[in-house]
Amino acid sequence: MQSTQAVTPPVKRGRPGYDQETVLQIAVEAFNEYGYDATSMGKLADRLGISKSAIYHHVPSKEDLLRLALDEALIPLESMIEQVRRHEGTADERLEFFLRSTVRILIAKRSYVTLLLRLRGNTELERTALERRRQMDRELSELVTVAQREGRLREDLEPRATARLLFGMINSVVDWYRLDGVIDAVTLENQAISLLFNGLHALPKNQTS
Amino acid sequence: MQSTQAVTPPVKRGRPGYDQETVLQIAVEAFNEYGYDATSMGKLADRLGISKSAIYHHVPSKEDLLRLALDEALIPLESMIEQVRRHEGTADERLEFFLRSTVRILIAKRSYVTLLLRLRGNTELERTALERRRQMDRELSELVTVAQREGRLREDLEPRATARLLFGMINSVVDWYRLDGVIDAVTLENQAISLLFNGLHALPKNQTS
Repeated sequence: MQSTQAVTPPVKRGRPGYDQETVLQIAVEAFNEYGYDATSMGKLADRLGISKSAIYHHVPSKEDLLRLALDEALIPLESMIEQVRRHEGTADERLEFFLRSTVRILIAKRSYVTLLLRLRGNTELERTALERRRQMDRELSELVTVAQREGRLREDLEPRATARLLFGMINSVVDWYRLDGVIDAVTLENQAISLLFNGLHALPKNQTS
Repeated sequence: MQSTQAVTPPVKRGRPGYDQETVLQIAVEAFNEYGYDATSMGKLADRLGISKSAIYHHVPSKEDLLRLALDEALIPLESMIEQVRRHEGTADERLEFFLRSTVRILIAKRSYVTLLLRLRGNTELERTALERRRQMDRELSELVTVAQREGRLREDLEPRATARLLFGMINSVVDWYRLDGVIDAVTLENQAISLLFNGLHALPKNQTS
């Protein structure tokens, strides 16, 4: 047995090592755990082990933390949509690029996307973020429509409902996918894309038992 | 102009017309809007326009409201799974029955399922509900495995991740589907099932442009 057992634990004091990125990451985890409204700056300070004034050194308000956190999810998604617009392939190829990139961003920005997906639209900031999210639904729906016109996608599927169903499957990844889980991120991306494009029944009916 | 403008508004008093079902429905809408933890019995009483003691006439506690609300979603889902177990068709047919029934229950019990899907697992009651939900994931994953063994489902898809992706698409319906929306409930069910089983690319590649 070591004598350190008897040593009094160090008193909690300000930890000067935090940068804004770390403060943001820990804040987002707290928002996701307790809800944004229920997470006070005092609670955040406790969680970071720093004083409230030390948090205000990093960001002027809780709403600024929310804005920064939502941008962590929205900016990469919007930049991906810009790439889709400039992509010179068929609508079908652009659709695949859109869906694959979304899976990657969701895995990389999991906690930030979770926050975005749970927004209720209670404030102007939240409503603006939700509107940016709806713009992505419209982009995806438009891409489905163009791919149908090109003859590469079946035409019986209603484009807006299809866009919602596609995002539904892909967005669910933030709720259940863990990096230490049963499949790695690349396999997950390939399986989700293949499931969406080819379905559970990949083979013609007459080749199955 | 009517002279009623000058009349003092009636004092708030108990509305004897509520039954437990209505109280439950309004409570669930409040839980979904503000979050369960942030919805006090006082807030609920305001929303119902009745006194707190009138709510306690219907249910002994807020947690009982949560239990009743979660059962509104869980009991039909578990009863559907019982039907799947007794179903005498192939695993493929049982899988389709499972997914179709889930879409129907989600549309019929939308606000209750929304509450279930947003649970964080903060209390014993919430953890029990989440465990009942995980049991459904396992049932679906097992059904995918059996359908793969039967040779009716492609074998390259990892069953647990596939079950999560299938539920991801279908559960999303509670977030976006509205009865007055672009497609009716039966069309939505058919389109979601067809998308999942046959994919976006329904035709063989050589038949597309």
